[in-house]
Amino acid sequence: MYLDLYSHRFTTSPPSIFSTHIHTFHKMATAEQKKFVSQIDANKAALIDRLAEAVSIPSVSGDANYRKACFDMADWLLAELKKLGATAELKPLGKQNLDGKEIELPPVILGDLGKDPKKKTILVYGHFDVQPALKSDGWDTEPFKLITDEKTGRMYGRGSTDDKGPILGWLNAIEAHQQAGIDLPVNLKFCFEGMEESGSVGLDELIAAEKDSFFQGVDAVCISDNYWLGTKKPCLTHGLRGIAYFKLAISGPARDLHSGVFGGVVHEPMTDLFTIMSKLVTAKGEILVPGIKELVAPLTDEERKRYDVMDFVLSDIEGATGSKTTVSDDKAAVLMGRMRYPCLSLHGIEGAFSEPGTKTVIPAKVIGKFSLRLVPDMTPDKVNELVTKYVNDEFAKIGSKNTMTITSEHGGKPWLADPNHWNYEAAIKATETIYGVKPDLTREGGSIPVTLTFADLLQKNVLLLPMGRSDDGAHSINEKLDISNYIEGTKLLGLYLHEVAATA
Amino acid sequence: MYLDLYSHRFTTSPPSIFSTHIHTFHKMATAEQKKFVSQIDANKAALIDRLAEAVSIPSVSGDANYRKACFDMADWLLAELKKLGATAELKPLGKQNLDGKEIELPPVILGDLGKDPKKKTILVYGHFDVQPALKSDGWDTEPFKLITDEKTGRMYGRGSTDDKGPILGWLNAIEAHQQAGIDLPVNLKFCFEGMEESGSVGLDELIAAEKDSFFQGVDAVCISDNYWLGTKKPCLTHGLRGIAYFKLAISGPARDLHSGVFGGVVHEPMTDLFTIMSKLVTAKGEILVPGIKELVAPLTDEERKRYDVMDFVLSDIEGATGSKTTVSDDKAAVLMGRMRYPCLSLHGIEGAFSEPGTKTVIPAKVIGKFSLRLVPDMTPDKVNELVTKYVNDEFAKIGSKNTMTITSEHGGKPWLADPNHWNYEAAIKATETIYGVKPDLTREGGSIPVTLTFADLLQKNVLLLPMGRSDDGAHSINEKLDISNYIEGTKLLGLYLHEVAATA
Repeated sequence: MYLDLYSHRFTTSPPSIFSTHIHTFHKMATAEQKKFVSQIDANKAALIDRLAEAVSIPSVSGDANYRKACFDMADWLLAELKKLGATAELKPLGKQNLDGKEIELPPVILGDLGKDPKKKTILVYGHFDVQPALKSDGWDTEPFKLITDEKTGRMYGRGSTDDKGPILGWLNAIEAHQQAGIDLPVNLKFCFEGMEESGSVGLDELIAAEKDSFFQGVDAVCISDNYWLGTKKPCLTHGLRGIAYFKLAISGPARDLHSGVFGGVVHEPMTDLFTIMSKLVTAKGEILVPGIKELVAPLTDEERKRYDVMDFVLSDIEGATGSKTTVSDDKAAVLMGRMRYPCLSLHGIEGAFSEPGTKTVIPAKVIGKFSLRLVPDMTPDKVNELVTKYVNDEFAKIGSKNTMTITSEHGGKPWLADPNHWNYEAAIKATETIYGVKPDLTREGGSIPVTLTFADLLQKNVLLLPMGRSDDGAHSINEKLDISNYIEGTKLLGLYLHEVAATA
Repeated sequence: MYLDLYSHRFTTSPPSIFSTHIHTFHKMATAEQKKFVSQIDANKAALIDRLAEAVSIPSVSGDANYRKACFDMADWLLAELKKLGATAELKPLGKQNLDGKEIELPPVILGDLGKDPKKKTILVYGHFDVQPALKSDGWDTEPFKLITDEKTGRMYGRGSTDDKGPILGWLNAIEAHQQAGIDLPVNLKFCFEGMEESGSVGLDELIAAEKDSFFQGVDAVCISDNYWLGTKKPCLTHGLRGIAYFKLAISGPARDLHSGVFGGVVHEPMTDLFTIMSKLVTAKGEILVPGIKELVAPLTDEERKRYDVMDFVLSDIEGATGSKTTVSDDKAAVLMGRMRYPCLSLHGIEGAFSEPGTKTVIPAKVIGKFSLRLVPDMTPDKVNELVTKYVNDEFAKIGSKNTMTITSEHGGKPWLADPNHWNYEAAIKATETIYGVKPDLTREGGSIPVTLTFADLLQKNVLLLPMGRSDDGAHSINEKLDISNYIEGTKLLGLYLHEVAATA
């Protein structure tokens, strides 16, 4: 069955790395691992059916009209967990105001499987809510019906890769162990939420409240909710950038003025704003705020080498952006620009003329929006202090009679996990066994706030172990998950648990 | 009657300059002029009634629902002209597309009164359309019902000062001549349009077409459609700034990007835009485009002296802008900043994030909007050349892979009339007779396109002779015209014609 699957896969969309894989697998896998893997292969059709069932429930958290489906999805998932023998319950989070209505938040599912004090305990996180999707957005197929394209080996449907496929990966792995009569080598705790696509409202508070009860005894955390860097090589992700978002407000006249009458007469807030915001960052991306660069942790040789081996070519960026506008033509420099250095982006202006056409207005009050992405050892507080001082100093220099205020809107610390921790060692070994290659050790440029919550509150190592690929289109039309990523990814999650148990 | 009127006025809102006025008037006015002025005073109640009738027709040109009222207003005005013995006709301008409907443009009224080859011929321009107005906009009274407040001496209503009061001023003056049995000392031509508040669609073409027919024989032009600089002293306006409007487009990626994923990776169009636009003008208003300053005609001593005597204090600007943000604390510098120097204003950005809240977007294509106000000897073409070269040079310096284009959107030449021309001498003398003071000789910062059209096409001196005051609120709620400005302004228009006839 296993080889059958493979020969099927190779006729469709074979990742190039699989050519050396079968040999590696037979060399590395234990007898139990082989048994588990065979069971997954045998279950393939049923696993796809299970994903189709999950995708058919339109659990869109951002639209009040779909709130019932979020509850249906929670009920469905709770029942699946219970079928596998887990203790699990729905944790209500209270109400929220959405689209003008006060409605109940989708619950969080907290569950346990196994309480053996001799085993390690792994907390797995996932989310069962999805982004909105309508056929009329431009989908080629019905978004809430999983469509399997045998020719390309892809399964299309909202939530297939983000994040129903990965959640089911855990359930599939447990089921296969039970079917094959293999003891699960770790204790598992589950935290599955239904509001991830809408700001994870209420989750942090629940984790904080359950820190010393439900979450007690967790040894490490594994989150499967991101993607490979490219389309061919698996990766583990051990870092995320933080953020510090600012609003720079400049106000002068009490109302918008006509530039014919008042141009040349008053200090114009827009001119002040452009003068100040142009001093934040150069066109090449260099941050000009003094003291920022000094906060960045120095690059180590070990880390530097990782960028050279990553599955990445500049054309990946060119494909994703639809342009050839990278700040560097050097692969490692581009990767480090995303992963391990800060950046400063100017997002827009509130209060200025923003429509098409021409208008000769002197806007009375304008609010420039910009943010920095943070990396260790930057903190939102320290960045706020440096930016505020710099902006105030620069505004004082220009001698404007307008009024300037800079406010820090929201901040999130960067997160960086130690990739030499046993949690990562286990995932690396499992990846080598399944995919026949060492995974890339990546960091991501954006933030996944729950990662930081787990790391901070539980003080345990957190691992991001993706199932899908960079081209899955998680928040776009025609979201997909390759069958190979689903099946091999399920095997990977199972083997990861074996390797966790095997580490010291 | 005349003294009665004055004693009334002084108990209400007397402009301070009137204290010396009666003596001056009796010394300067001829017997015929005195007779005309007495007739206006005698007509006061009827003249207010006539204005009330005009205001009651809601001739809003910018809203298709009011288009019938624009035609009604044209018919009403045509009938009034004919009652006075003028030959006049409605000139159709064709159709326009407004609010999705194709509708007929309001006609222009072209009329003649007198064809005596021994008399000078003065062309007077005005507009009978008005800005939109709804009680719910915040008006204290019904906008299309003229409300006279006897305590303050003010008449409130849409169009009272802009521009129905001034148009009726001409008609009132003619009628008083006829009633008093005084021969009108000049030939008059009338050009009254109904689209001024909506871009004067079709007017330029009509003037060009009628240049050698209807407009043949005009000796000078008088437009009463602007305002005193302040609230106490009359003025004549002999200059208007021109404009050159630019769009600076910078595009990079094919779609908006997430700053977490692509910040630090690509050249960001917003950063380029801020870098370039910040190099156009300093916070103090100095234009940084090389060659612009050199185009500005030097200040003469004669002109310099005018700014010192103008009825203006810095608090006028502070009142109008609701702020103390003038670029200079020197009165003459502020006036010259508005009237005789260019300026550069940054209006806004199309394509960037402009809503409230925070969004971590890297906009894919942004279009910065800015414009310069032009003074002699700047021309839109020359400014376009200098700005385009400078912006291209600066963009080349920053080494961005994004694409930049600068386009000139629309341009208008500055206008400057010779205030030593007999047309101005006549208005100065008439103002001294009526108001007992030499008028300020002002220039305005904005543009009134028809002024330039008349000056260019007819090659005749154009005079702007305002009736209302700076605080009339022409385009705002509670638009008003002081009774004194209406009555004295009517006298001024009549006496101006006498002085035109008396000049060599």
